[in-house]
Amino acid sequence: MPRFALKVEYHGKPFAGWQRQKDQPSVQGAIEAALARLEPGEHTIAAAGRTDTGVHALGQVAHCDLAKDWDPFRLSEALNYHLKPDPVAIVDCARVDDGWHARFSAVERQYLFRILIRRAPATHDAGQVWQLSHDLDANAMQEAASHLVGNHDFTTFRSSICQAASPVKTLDELRVERVQGFSGPEIHFHVRARSFLHNQVRSFVGTLERVGAGAWDPADVKAALDARDRAACGPVCPGHGLYLARVGYPDDPFA
Amino acid sequence: MPRFALKVEYHGKPFAGWQRQKDQPSVQGAIEAALARLEPGEHTIAAAGRTDTGVHALGQVAHCDLAKDWDPFRLSEALNYHLKPDPVAIVDCARVDDGWHARFSAVERQYLFRILIRRAPATHDAGQVWQLSHDLDANAMQEAASHLVGNHDFTTFRSSICQAASPVKTLDELRVERVQGFSGPEIHFHVRARSFLHNQVRSFVGTLERVGAGAWDPADVKAALDARDRAACGPVCPGHGLYLARVGYPDDPFA
Repeated sequence: MPRFALKVEYHGKPFAGWQRQKDQPSVQGAIEAALARLEPGEHTIAAAGRTDTGVHALGQVAHCDLAKDWDPFRLSEALNYHLKPDPVAIVDCARVDDGWHARFSAVERQYLFRILIRRAPATHDAGQVWQLSHDLDANAMQEAASHLVGNHDFTTFRSSICQAASPVKTLDELRVERVQGFSGPEIHFHVRARSFLHNQVRSFVGTLERVGAGAWDPADVKAALDARDRAACGPVCPGHGLYLARVGYPDDPFA
Repeated sequence: MPRFALKVEYHGKPFAGWQRQKDQPSVQGAIEAALARLEPGEHTIAAAGRTDTGVHALGQVAHCDLAKDWDPFRLSEALNYHLKPDPVAIVDCARVDDGWHARFSAVERQYLFRILIRRAPATHDAGQVWQLSHDLDANAMQEAASHLVGNHDFTTFRSSICQAASPVKTLDELRVERVQGFSGPEIHFHVRARSFLHNQVRSFVGTLERVGAGAWDPADVKAALDARDRAACGPVCPGHGLYLARVGYPDDPFA
């Protein structure tokens, strides 16, 4: 069966995360249902990252096996037609080898986290940012973030239900950027690694927010990391500011 | 009664426009209902611009008269509390003189129109952009737009139901800008004048789109203007890419 890679964008709000669930809407379920409209029967797709409830994607990657050797552009068009009105879009599609796997072939994941700083409730960006009414010191957060980059035991920043074999990971980038957004000043966190532990990005951002607010010193984040203790983590921030931005492969199937 | 100026941001989707209606939700109705939670009774507020169905605002300005001499910050906080979960936010509030009027004191209105250029349906920006799948020539549109700037009889670009006394207006700015948006390339139109005719901005954008797509020459827009005939206008574009961005006053009440 021909295998296709799909680059997927979605708004996380209406979904209980990526993964198919029995009684709740999921992104995986929405795409599998659209595939069944094209080729009747059961479909099971695999994704590079299983995003949680409310988490968005700009560049999630999944793969599917189909009976027909579809033209990739026509396949994406047909899927987008059947995905309506769900806020899920196939933004790219490519034919890949049978051995290619959206999750296991991936060598890098990149996340974006958005904080909107303003007092009045967000209207256009509601559900797409973590909104805070107090300002944050981006320089202090960047200094604290520098302690996290590199190869570390990230037990402190790992959900208790995380199923990864080891808490040791290499964090390649954690960049803090202040930008002028559509609705006010925003803080963007750009986070990049080969792979992540469960809730790792949200644990980072929740902890760094404490630094930005002045409640923690940058050095406290180093101490929290060194503690290798979940109890040393700051509060885990909400998921609706988080975006799976990009997945990297040795050979980009969409290039 | 003390008078207050309100700077209002809203997402136009759930509303049948700004103006209060008997059986349909409106932005005016939502704010008046919130005011009634603070001071029981009937409230009637006036706005600088009456936006149509689906049209957004980043900086609409309205005024209200209240019995109590509210602290402006506390008034905005209380209104935002009662406006939830409607996507309407009071982003600024100021005490003004009794003679100050949101509409009649205004000397400038600025609109933003967003076109998103991409094939796959928008997810995060759905309902906030006019989406087109073909590319547009921003330079050609800017050349065409230059014919519209200045003092003209805008009968061609005026809705047949427009109630303005005269079709002659001075357009101070019509700037076409290509920007990289969150979901893909966007064309932004920045349009500024003392006042506008009904559907004028949407008539401009719909006509300029024809130029950007190559169907019209820039000179055709000049001919359409000179015709002073509604039938010479290009197609009026949808309202959900339109934002009332800013209202100008001789003395900015929010400064």
